[in-house]
Amino acid sequence: MKEVVTGIDIGGTNTVFGLVDKAGNILAENSLKTTAYPDIKNFVSALAAAINEMMEESNLKLAGIGIGAPNANYHKGTIELAPNLAWKGIVPLAEYIRKKINVPVIVTNDANAAAMGEMIFGGAKKMKNFIVLTLGTGLGSGIVINGEVVYGHTGFAGELGHTIVVPGGRDCGCGRQGCYETYASASGLVRTVLYMLSEMREESSLRDIHPSELTAKKIAEAANKKDPIAVEALDYTAEILAFGIVNAIGFSSPEAVFLFGGLAQAGEMLFTPVREYVDQNVQPIFKGTVKILPSGVSESNAAVLGAAALAWNELKK
Amino acid sequence: MKEVVTGIDIGGTNTVFGLVDKAGNILAENSLKTTAYPDIKNFVSALAAAINEMMEESNLKLAGIGIGAPNANYHKGTIELAPNLAWKGIVPLAEYIRKKINVPVIVTNDANAAAMGEMIFGGAKKMKNFIVLTLGTGLGSGIVINGEVVYGHTGFAGELGHTIVVPGGRDCGCGRQGCYETYASASGLVRTVLYMLSEMREESSLRDIHPSELTAKKIAEAANKKDPIAVEALDYTAEILAFGIVNAIGFSSPEAVFLFGGLAQAGEMLFTPVREYVDQNVQPIFKGTVKILPSGVSESNAAVLGAAALAWNELKK
Repeated sequence: MKEVVTGIDIGGTNTVFGLVDKAGNILAENSLKTTAYPDIKNFVSALAAAINEMMEESNLKLAGIGIGAPNANYHKGTIELAPNLAWKGIVPLAEYIRKKINVPVIVTNDANAAAMGEMIFGGAKKMKNFIVLTLGTGLGSGIVINGEVVYGHTGFAGELGHTIVVPGGRDCGCGRQGCYETYASASGLVRTVLYMLSEMREESSLRDIHPSELTAKKIAEAANKKDPIAVEALDYTAEILAFGIVNAIGFSSPEAVFLFGGLAQAGEMLFTPVREYVDQNVQPIFKGTVKILPSGVSESNAAVLGAAALAWNELKK
Repeated sequence: MKEVVTGIDIGGTNTVFGLVDKAGNILAENSLKTTAYPDIKNFVSALAAAINEMMEESNLKLAGIGIGAPNANYHKGTIELAPNLAWKGIVPLAEYIRKKINVPVIVTNDANAAAMGEMIFGGAKKMKNFIVLTLGTGLGSGIVINGEVVYGHTGFAGELGHTIVVPGGRDCGCGRQGCYETYASASGLVRTVLYMLSEMREESSLRDIHPSELTAKKIAEAANKKDPIAVEALDYTAEILAFGIVNAIGFSSPEAVFLFGGLAQAGEMLFTPVREYVDQNVQPIFKGTVKILPSGVSESNAAVLGAAALAWNELKK
């Protein structure tokens, strides 16, 4: 009987999950509204029922479950104090799920899962040292050193989004100022546009969009049409993104940094200046040693594949 | 026959080396003037002769050689483009030494060797995730993750001293501005005092010392006597030191950060404010998870013990 794992991505709004074989094929997929289950036990029951249903319809053997979730602790299998989820305190998620489905259950945050997905199914198959930055509403990071995702003493390592790049800078949801993700993310780009609309006098199509409706995608489209504010904002975003990458290189000297998520969709308009800023500013000893690459996993499958990769990697041990 | 390794610390001025047993006892020690050997081959000959002489006098068996040196590449066993050494270009140091003494030869930079010393002989014996910062003329860093020193793709990882903490800040020897070591090191403290002497009007005993003769030690002594400039400069140094530690915590979530070297000699006058600044500024998820500790290896033995630990660790594999 062919073995599969379940990859589960728990987001603030939706939870997506699928059955994934060793080659990275998604054989079945389904989803739940996370917000419909304010009680974690009901959520786990619904999730387990949906997985069992998928399995019953197949002729497959379930070998394990991998989960990407906000504020997940790899060491403990818990979700802890997640601001964007209804489940308060410390939730022993892996334990709850194992009670319903008795297979190994591995939990980590979504960016660490993305790094695992990149290593098992994506562009980092032959790499031992790389970093994945997920540039969405926030900035998530998964760091791989010597072929292992870095979890650190606490299980929460790899929080580059909350390293401070502009002391005294923009307010961050974490309660501090100047965090990397307040600049280098899809929503950081939007904030930069708003700032530039205040500072610059140039005409811009972005002046005709409600601030609440501005998105990285609309800004990238405007930049593509040479809108001066959009071009300037993308360049500044690339500069700060590169600044954080340069400091990360000094830490772990990766072979590559993969950029993923909404902001990375801007493509070469982002990658070209990021590569230039990294090259200009990196410590001489690391010059030319790091590739800045788009993710090798498609955006639509990445969350489920990353979580599944986590399970496959653990089963291999 | 009892086994020992040779631990060698190559500095810009002196090279110190000793025979070290498994328990971390230094059984014999000697040194050479690094500057007396502008030709690397002569240096290696003199070093090998001195080691052989030490061995002949003993009843010991040499199992390996560990070397801490500036700009050392662990993967390749080389010293590369070291600005403070006379040997230019890429020097295949491990290979040269092995030709003279046929045992395993391991090379890394001095801060990585210090981290290894801390793990094998010092305060990190039971730790798998920690960072050592050596605060001397520069700031060196050795990062341990999952029980392994981080060397990265290039072999040069762990260069926190050249991560940028003040964009556009002080000129650094690496050709860039605002590097961590231009603030958080013994010489960084001296630069901060000079700046504060320019900014502040308070009387200070430090106004009576030639700038070229200012040292971290003299500043710490003045701070101990409540000299206002010295106190302010130490506090600012602690703040920036803590800032870099906070960002490093976001990266690898260590159990402890060990401070070592000239600046760390300031003792509680430095450690107390560093701990406070870290506690105030660290990301909430890491609050209270990281100990800031003095090194558990004595300053005078650390260089040789660190290099020896490198060899012992490699022989264990």
